[in-house]
Amino acid sequence: MRFSKQLLCTAVCTVFMAPLAMAQMAQRTPTPNDTLKSPNVLADKRVLIQIYAPKASEVTVGGDFLSNPQPLSLKKNEQGVWSVLIGPLKPDYYSYTLMVDGVRTMDPKNPVIKQGISSLENMMAVPGPETAFEDNKAVPHGEVREVWYSSNTLNMMRRMHVYTPPGYEKGNTKYPIFYLLHGGGDDDSGWNTIGRAGFILDNLIAAGKAKPMIVVMPNGSMPLPPMNGMPNAQMMNQLRDLFSSELLKEVMPYVEKNYRTLPNAENRAIAGLSMGGFQTLDVTLTHPELFNYVGVFSSGFFGATADEADTKYAKVLNDPNFNKGKKLFWVSIGKDDFVMDANKKTLALLDKHNIKYQYKESSGGHTWINWRQYLNEYTPMLFK
Amino acid sequence: MRFSKQLLCTAVCTVFMAPLAMAQMAQRTPTPNDTLKSPNVLADKRVLIQIYAPKASEVTVGGDFLSNPQPLSLKKNEQGVWSVLIGPLKPDYYSYTLMVDGVRTMDPKNPVIKQGISSLENMMAVPGPETAFEDNKAVPHGEVREVWYSSNTLNMMRRMHVYTPPGYEKGNTKYPIFYLLHGGGDDDSGWNTIGRAGFILDNLIAAGKAKPMIVVMPNGSMPLPPMNGMPNAQMMNQLRDLFSSELLKEVMPYVEKNYRTLPNAENRAIAGLSMGGFQTLDVTLTHPELFNYVGVFSSGFFGATADEADTKYAKVLNDPNFNKGKKLFWVSIGKDDFVMDANKKTLALLDKHNIKYQYKESSGGHTWINWRQYLNEYTPMLFK
Repeated sequence: MRFSKQLLCTAVCTVFMAPLAMAQMAQRTPTPNDTLKSPNVLADKRVLIQIYAPKASEVTVGGDFLSNPQPLSLKKNEQGVWSVLIGPLKPDYYSYTLMVDGVRTMDPKNPVIKQGISSLENMMAVPGPETAFEDNKAVPHGEVREVWYSSNTLNMMRRMHVYTPPGYEKGNTKYPIFYLLHGGGDDDSGWNTIGRAGFILDNLIAAGKAKPMIVVMPNGSMPLPPMNGMPNAQMMNQLRDLFSSELLKEVMPYVEKNYRTLPNAENRAIAGLSMGGFQTLDVTLTHPELFNYVGVFSSGFFGATADEADTKYAKVLNDPNFNKGKKLFWVSIGKDDFVMDANKKTLALLDKHNIKYQYKESSGGHTWINWRQYLNEYTPMLFK
Repeated sequence: MRFSKQLLCTAVCTVFMAPLAMAQMAQRTPTPNDTLKSPNVLADKRVLIQIYAPKASEVTVGGDFLSNPQPLSLKKNEQGVWSVLIGPLKPDYYSYTLMVDGVRTMDPKNPVIKQGISSLENMMAVPGPETAFEDNKAVPHGEVREVWYSSNTLNMMRRMHVYTPPGYEKGNTKYPIFYLLHGGGDDDSGWNTIGRAGFILDNLIAAGKAKPMIVVMPNGSMPLPPMNGMPNAQMMNQLRDLFSSELLKEVMPYVEKNYRTLPNAENRAIAGLSMGGFQTLDVTLTHPELFNYVGVFSSGFFGATADEADTKYAKVLNDPNFNKGKKLFWVSIGKDDFVMDANKKTLALLDKHNIKYQYKESSGGHTWINWRQYLNEYTPMLFK
């Protein structure tokens, strides 16, 4: 939509525009911003990212479409529009963030975002046949529910997202449950926005590749106590234990009481990425009886725990029945992932104790590009 | 959390930080931004809004806490932090947007946002007893579901949000349905974020003030054809008719088929704000047999339709049975609302045809502050 100043703030406008946006537009004359499109995905899979910032002296963009963390510089034209042409990119969903003179800025032309616990990122799609597995297609869709529950463990209201498969609402079937954990900095919405978990499940189920299941996405970010500096190793361990308590004492009982579930190990899976992978390892190696299917994406024992793990989890690591109770223990990581060292140490620990697992090393790094692929690969192996 | 540069990008970090944020922090030395808090709600209900933008020459903030659309200027200190102290504000939930040298900027310190079809706004809470009706309290919560359906009318996948009341999941009860429409610029998520509809319903139901019900929040923003300039009156009418088709032919049949509903007029309510109020009027005055409860918030016949309405809706306006079929026709608006003229013309039209309605003129303008109050006042009157 383009707006001419003459037409602004007639009664007609109110039907289309948010009051605040309207009020702001009424303050000023038209600018190149009014007709700008960003991100502008071109037919050749290159993407033009643009922002109107005539007074800025530096604009950069970072994102998971880059193979390294060094952001790209945008260039300014005479009208004050900064732009950079990236790609061609492999068709997929990407996240990006603009920095305008050092200020983290959501692309004003792109309302599609991913929410984290302390920051936002923009999202964009580059269409193509490669994204078929994660697209919003005309197949039967499950529902993704925002569920608030009262947590005694944390003494607060907490939220989770719950995917129920197509047909759940009208039927009486009981379903297996897949607990799917996000990474550090994210919350329980992440797997359903940038992670596209709902669409990936819809497409797998529609194609007969995955069993219909309930997917539970809890909030894995524990409330932090007031502190100076980074959390130390002791606090890290406390937070890890706190999440396990929350999952075992609050999330699982709530879900298995309130939904039509098959609440036994053969019908329970767990997987997590990064911090969520670490949480998955912790739960699996302290409560091996709960989940017959375990997935660890781009993770490993981080920090102090890496050295302690052999001791902390000795009982389960040395249990000769551990392997019998697991139908799948799947570990995946990108070859350029910066947590590769923690991953390798963890695999060495599993090897030392003859714990069986399947290992997949993909290309790429610590990105949602990989995590969506891992979800698409892991889910069909569940409950079979 | 504060970070010292020495500790950045150790393996420990990965548990807490999004990879992109981590990569970006690794690029630079610490700044005042690292410890900044915004919005900082003070004990006296004043709110400090702050942003670190050392290179900027002008920063302003607009939002619904202001009684007029003129944004406030922030002032810069020696460290490059811009700030403004607003209020004291009446305890409530507010939306705001920063402009940094003319660039619309989400507060980098505040990940809580409201999504629109073309832009974002930040949200913030000023706590106090006045917000009890809209707070996330330790009462039984309903679920808010993201529901995708295939629309034949629009030939695309469309989304709605559906609130199911506490106990829905485990019971067999059939419920009345309330169709709740958002305003221009918003989408189907608006009533559940800045509108706090889920929490308002939870609290009303927990207090016994409202009947348990299903609340359906469809996406009322119709896809716009490519065009130059503002939509003209003809296109406005097309979009209005398109929404009515979508509601009647797609949304209502889907909901009434897939959920445990009581699908008759006595158990159906509709209400909408601004554009959604206009849509509510259109549906009510073309299909008076569908809804016994009608709510119009901060609306009226906009633009060209105001003159046509007497003709377009003549059949229903002149139907002597119209009033009998309505248990409630509730119209509300703030006395400073900029659509007051359209509202008054609409009331005059209803008066002319002896259509009975209840009218409430509140303080304030065209804001979510009012719409949450209206929802809290309207809902208890339904299905009784």
